[in-house]
Amino acid sequence: MLRHFGVHAPRLAFNCKSRLVGGCNGQSLIRRAFSAASPPSKAIVYETHGAPDAVAKLVEVAAAEVKENEVCVKMLAAPINPSDINRIQGVYPVRPEPPAVGGYEGVGEVHSVGSSVTSLSPGDRVIPSPPSFGTWQTYIVKDENVWHKIEKGVPIEYAATITVNPLTALLMLEQCVTLNSGDTIVQNGATSMVGQCVIQLAKSRGIHSINIIRDRPGVDEVKERLKDLGADEVFTENELEVKNVKSLLGGIPEPELGFNCVGGHAASLILKFLRQGGTMVTYGGMSKKPVTVSTSSFIFKDLSLRGFWLQKWLSTDKAEESRRMIDRLLRLVQEGKLKYKMELAPFDDFNTALDKALGKHGSQPKQVIKF
Amino acid sequence: MLRHFGVHAPRLAFNCKSRLVGGCNGQSLIRRAFSAASPPSKAIVYETHGAPDAVAKLVEVAAAEVKENEVCVKMLAAPINPSDINRIQGVYPVRPEPPAVGGYEGVGEVHSVGSSVTSLSPGDRVIPSPPSFGTWQTYIVKDENVWHKIEKGVPIEYAATITVNPLTALLMLEQCVTLNSGDTIVQNGATSMVGQCVIQLAKSRGIHSINIIRDRPGVDEVKERLKDLGADEVFTENELEVKNVKSLLGGIPEPELGFNCVGGHAASLILKFLRQGGTMVTYGGMSKKPVTVSTSSFIFKDLSLRGFWLQKWLSTDKAEESRRMIDRLLRLVQEGKLKYKMELAPFDDFNTALDKALGKHGSQPKQVIKF
Repeated sequence: MLRHFGVHAPRLAFNCKSRLVGGCNGQSLIRRAFSAASPPSKAIVYETHGAPDAVAKLVEVAAAEVKENEVCVKMLAAPINPSDINRIQGVYPVRPEPPAVGGYEGVGEVHSVGSSVTSLSPGDRVIPSPPSFGTWQTYIVKDENVWHKIEKGVPIEYAATITVNPLTALLMLEQCVTLNSGDTIVQNGATSMVGQCVIQLAKSRGIHSINIIRDRPGVDEVKERLKDLGADEVFTENELEVKNVKSLLGGIPEPELGFNCVGGHAASLILKFLRQGGTMVTYGGMSKKPVTVSTSSFIFKDLSLRGFWLQKWLSTDKAEESRRMIDRLLRLVQEGKLKYKMELAPFDDFNTALDKALGKHGSQPKQVIKF
Repeated sequence: MLRHFGVHAPRLAFNCKSRLVGGCNGQSLIRRAFSAASPPSKAIVYETHGAPDAVAKLVEVAAAEVKENEVCVKMLAAPINPSDINRIQGVYPVRPEPPAVGGYEGVGEVHSVGSSVTSLSPGDRVIPSPPSFGTWQTYIVKDENVWHKIEKGVPIEYAATITVNPLTALLMLEQCVTLNSGDTIVQNGATSMVGQCVIQLAKSRGIHSINIIRDRPGVDEVKERLKDLGADEVFTENELEVKNVKSLLGGIPEPELGFNCVGGHAASLILKFLRQGGTMVTYGGMSKKPVTVSTSSFIFKDLSLRGFWLQKWLSTDKAEESRRMIDRLLRLVQEGKLKYKMELAPFDDFNTALDKALGKHGSQPKQVIKF
């Protein structure tokens, strides 16, 4: 399965770093002749769009030059997110043109730095933040600015997965409507990584969460797990086939904010739960069914519907803000206040992890590749 | 068909107005004994909710006392709006409890005023503003504050209809998103009264309008009429069965705001026209079909959907603001810059007008009862 990946021509590779060679004469010489190089690398590459299990291949990548402003990172772990799959399929609106290396977030350790790099040193633990294409590769060379240094104490599977789903959960909770302690949110797809984060982040602010999950085997165990995370209520879709879902709220206030990552009927259930003037934010569509809304929901119930897309938010000059939020999230992880189910998968067995991420083996935890 | 309407007991009726009788002794005596009275009245009343053509009856109403702070108005005209019909049917969320007089807006002439009334005099032309229940009655007695004095030069059919549909059009154009000259809106139901107003109010601000109408006989004439009002483009739903509706925009910018009063497929057409980040405002659902939205419309196209309901807007202490807007609209009417199709119907033939408003005779202009 290993193939040589010759699409990106290897850059010139030298083993000395120009910053360590003070005696070189001439600026251009320093830049060209004394740049460092990455080790040869392995990567998951797709040469065309298509079914991920057909087009994604493990290939060898030649050593790459590390320019003066660049940093070479030995990757430690990177997840397979649904958006990674959609990018390979060619159905995600923002994506690299193939041939391309898969992946969008991850964690690594600085291997070497270019001559003008000052903020990072070999051995530093870093994540691309904002996330950056091509993380499914053992050694990555990217501009210094791409990398955000983090504490080494964070488990690699959390560091590798913090910049997409937990950040989405945090942003949706903090930037869609103003919520106060005692308020309520409702969400479907509550077992998703975003869903698990929403429960915990809401709980940490005293915000109640109503959670909707699919009917599935072992539903009691799932409910128990989500309640352990801080969920106030967990209902299966079938349990909500009642005339008035609000009768199930008990003492919890009606929710003013809902998160929809499923669509179809599961989105309608959120609309039913929302209070007068409430907002539903759509950030996914796992059922592949559209959202259907009655006219009276808009006019008389005054509901607002919108979407959230992390990639768009990040595109509006939010690098610094997102890093501050990432640091907050990583602290919560270290304090044991933010956890979610993952499975570390060896890079050599990428195909099995991909099959699990594609849903071939039923509901599975988030697959995180360990390099 | 005339019946005596004895539900609201007639108030004591005197023929002198206390303000004209300065010699009365004692405050309580003045208040009680020298209040004026309305003439006996005729009204369209429904004693229970139900089909309007079954439950709405023309009845006689006894003379009513005009208290010191009240004004008796001889109504001149009042329209039959869809919301009036829905209130009679009992399906409108805010409605008077039956037995009740129908109608919500109209125009009249002050007949007599209570002793403490200072802002109005007999002969003044007035409208209830904000609108007020029970305008389908020949003489109405309401608090002084209900009535807004207007210019007599405004044709009664416009004065009678200005506070609901034209105000809805103006508010939706001005208070949903910030539009500038050169921007574009898209709407369905463009032949509705709100639709006609939107075209003209947009035009007056240099805002383009894309208009969607039902496929119907005489479509060319309808298009011509809407273009005469200022519509940039008018399409039937069938004409929009193309792969990319935006290819039909010509040189007009993609719309950032859409108005939906139809639902179903006609709402989807608006969503197709909207530009990235656009907003659709739903204010009606003539097709009785819900709005269906793809997940990607929310996430990747960043569309926002909300509703507009005049009655809710008015409920938030907007009386003064709404009167200023009404005055602006009435000036536009007088300047010939705001017109819409109506049909004046004699009060005695209310049933025919109601049948037309109920759609029994196909598409008809707005029915305005002339008392």
